[in-house]
Amino acid sequence: MYDLIILGGGPAGYNAAERAAHGGLKTLVFEERALGGVCLNEGCIPTKTLLYSAKILDYAHHGEKYGVTVEGAKLDHAKVVDRKDKVVKTLVSGVGAKMKGAGVTVVNGTAKITGKSADGFTVECGADKYEAKKLLICTGSEAVVPPVPGLREAVGTGLAVTNREVLDRRELPKEVVVIGGGVIGLEMASYFNSVGCKVSVIEMMDKIAGPTDAEISKILQNNYAKRGVEFILGAKVVKVTDNKGSGVVEYEKDGKTVGVKCDLILVSTGRRARTKDIGLEELGVAMNRGAVITDESCRTNIPGVWAAGDVNGKIMLAHTAYREGEVAVSDMLGIKDKVDYRSIPSVIYTNPEVGCVGETLESAKKAGLDVEEHTISLRYSGRYIAENEGGDGIVKIIVGKEHKNVLGVHMIGTYASEIIYGAAMMVAREMRVKDVQKLVFPHPSVCEVIREGMFSIK
Amino acid sequence: MYDLIILGGGPAGYNAAERAAHGGLKTLVFEERALGGVCLNEGCIPTKTLLYSAKILDYAHHGEKYGVTVEGAKLDHAKVVDRKDKVVKTLVSGVGAKMKGAGVTVVNGTAKITGKSADGFTVECGADKYEAKKLLICTGSEAVVPPVPGLREAVGTGLAVTNREVLDRRELPKEVVVIGGGVIGLEMASYFNSVGCKVSVIEMMDKIAGPTDAEISKILQNNYAKRGVEFILGAKVVKVTDNKGSGVVEYEKDGKTVGVKCDLILVSTGRRARTKDIGLEELGVAMNRGAVITDESCRTNIPGVWAAGDVNGKIMLAHTAYREGEVAVSDMLGIKDKVDYRSIPSVIYTNPEVGCVGETLESAKKAGLDVEEHTISLRYSGRYIAENEGGDGIVKIIVGKEHKNVLGVHMIGTYASEIIYGAAMMVAREMRVKDVQKLVFPHPSVCEVIREGMFSIK
Repeated sequence: MYDLIILGGGPAGYNAAERAAHGGLKTLVFEERALGGVCLNEGCIPTKTLLYSAKILDYAHHGEKYGVTVEGAKLDHAKVVDRKDKVVKTLVSGVGAKMKGAGVTVVNGTAKITGKSADGFTVECGADKYEAKKLLICTGSEAVVPPVPGLREAVGTGLAVTNREVLDRRELPKEVVVIGGGVIGLEMASYFNSVGCKVSVIEMMDKIAGPTDAEISKILQNNYAKRGVEFILGAKVVKVTDNKGSGVVEYEKDGKTVGVKCDLILVSTGRRARTKDIGLEELGVAMNRGAVITDESCRTNIPGVWAAGDVNGKIMLAHTAYREGEVAVSDMLGIKDKVDYRSIPSVIYTNPEVGCVGETLESAKKAGLDVEEHTISLRYSGRYIAENEGGDGIVKIIVGKEHKNVLGVHMIGTYASEIIYGAAMMVAREMRVKDVQKLVFPHPSVCEVIREGMFSIK
Repeated sequence: MYDLIILGGGPAGYNAAERAAHGGLKTLVFEERALGGVCLNEGCIPTKTLLYSAKILDYAHHGEKYGVTVEGAKLDHAKVVDRKDKVVKTLVSGVGAKMKGAGVTVVNGTAKITGKSADGFTVECGADKYEAKKLLICTGSEAVVPPVPGLREAVGTGLAVTNREVLDRRELPKEVVVIGGGVIGLEMASYFNSVGCKVSVIEMMDKIAGPTDAEISKILQNNYAKRGVEFILGAKVVKVTDNKGSGVVEYEKDGKTVGVKCDLILVSTGRRARTKDIGLEELGVAMNRGAVITDESCRTNIPGVWAAGDVNGKIMLAHTAYREGEVAVSDMLGIKDKVDYRSIPSVIYTNPEVGCVGETLESAKKAGLDVEEHTISLRYSGRYIAENEGGDGIVKIIVGKEHKNVLGVHMIGTYASEIIYGAAMMVAREMRVKDVQKLVFPHPSVCEVIREGMFSIK
């Protein structure tokens, strides 16, 4: 009898397992593929490895503005993929070592909840049965392939790929069509653009980057458009034709149908929670559009069953999953805790990077909050100017009108990915403009523009 | 009659001028060289411009590990210096525009306080007299050239330079001796090393990087030693010989005298407050070893006279100067405010970068604080591993033993310069380990190692 069985060894699952074990719970994790989940194996980490190599190539290509010239800069994509595999392997075995160190049992296989008793739950994996007092569902999410005629067939032949397969191709395409201009699509578009592929992004909305602030999305789009990425917005993909290795993606826009030739299609139109065939319906776990419904403590409607990570369909980000897993474990251990969904940062690892946290002007208005928005150019930063010829980055600060409390910070520019956590702290701790003004930020830095921005708020 | 006269238009002065003008004070700033002071003209900003170009060259040289190869990477030092001049010019005129926008009067010239009356103070500049109710002394600091036989003569011929002249040389030296392994010396050593010069750093202490945590200093030293920088620690420079363009620096170590050949000497042995010939003694302003004595509100002993920035000799960093200038102005305006010297971050812009804030184990012990230190490798970060082959960065967290409150954070590794402000926030806001654990940091990021480190504290 385990105290806790966790279904899924991704960021929610493995992190929760470690915290639970440290909290004294006898814990077992089922993982059907590799520890680390989508994030580590086919998401965050592999893409960052690729993007870093692309950044080095970008530096080589654009060094002349900074007094550095190179000849014959080349990126060897197969080597980059090899290195990606090595990085992933290192990290996956690191997670394994963590589990071992914490005394967590890891079982490789597909598990299904098959029974409930007064004592707890039964979980089966292959021929084996396991019992636990508590369950934590961390089965994550998977890419959605929309029902476009020809698209599933193209996935079958390998012409079309999702985030999973795209990272393992050892040959570069010549012309890529990215369907879906969200974070995953944009990061891969960025990579393919840097390494010299022709890239078209087809997006149904009239802007890229999903819920990201519209002005920031536009700056990002302009940066990539300048580098040659074609953005086809407000367009609906209606047909995919596969001519053995090369294909055509047809889209409808403004009543016209246009075809784009390509030899690779990346499908990045969204992700859905993985809740099928694991016994949730039989257990009576309440769901909404296929995702497990959870409260701020990550409880489901069934006592003894928690869920964390993408499977709840809330904010599908690895760091949200980490925190949800921790909160679920705190709740199991009787420690008061909850997820503060207002202060979860998000990052797009393009170049320039985008980092956001909290309300945008749009979301605040929708929520009926009385706010004001202040925008400041990153060119207020000496470091930014020193490092970004022609840079057009900005920071936007959203504050409550009455108390001047920081409700949101949104930025596009270098280091945004590493700066935004501090802004998340401001939002989480409900800091006021005056509080931030009294902090000392290092000079010269890009982050100090956040502080400077606070002085434009009266 | 002005409300406020500020002596010196560096970070303390120009920032205070802007805040004062916004606060309704009729303000005048005297600057004898260029607005922006040492920081903007011959310190922080120019060095960051150079270091960024060097970083691009480093990327080109070390890209192979990441699958990127180049041929014939070259840095054109004269172009880098030209670009540095352009960046500085842009920023200096930005400060000028700021002053104009705020309605601050700027006078170019050397000013001296010449009188005191019931109403205020008289300041003379050339043939002109100015009156103000209040004074703010922001005259900054200057490089110390130690009394080593032959060194001042070498400064005269240009063989030896300080932070000022080193940035304007349009030709690269072949062999550089850096006297003094503090921040300025290390940043320039880093540049010269990257661009291919032979570099020797002679330091009197047995460690580099001044008061920086010893383990972090050692990691930094090892990184540069691997790249070919020679560190001669615990050594005293005793003589400099100038043979017209080339020279020899002799040092004593372990009772032996050794000579190092070079064609450039960078003197970076420290800085002293600039308090001479501006009328401070005549006014009766209390000083300690040539620096103006100030309290937490930046008041001097003379009512109506404040001082901010390097001139107080406390923490000679531009961002300290900014904050001190602001606090002085708050105090003039009757707003309660003080400088929180415990939470001022510091950065070394080497590669890897160093970012520090608050107590080290050593300083805490000296202060009689009961603390514990927790060290965590940056290799806990997937991003760090993805971006740093063989990286050996760490984060150290110092917490109070009783309350587990964050008293210090010290790190060496990529992005430390942009991460450390958030740690400064933790120190300033007296956050506890549990508070940081509840925050959400973006994944993957290097900063999230700070959060992870909090979970190793029981």
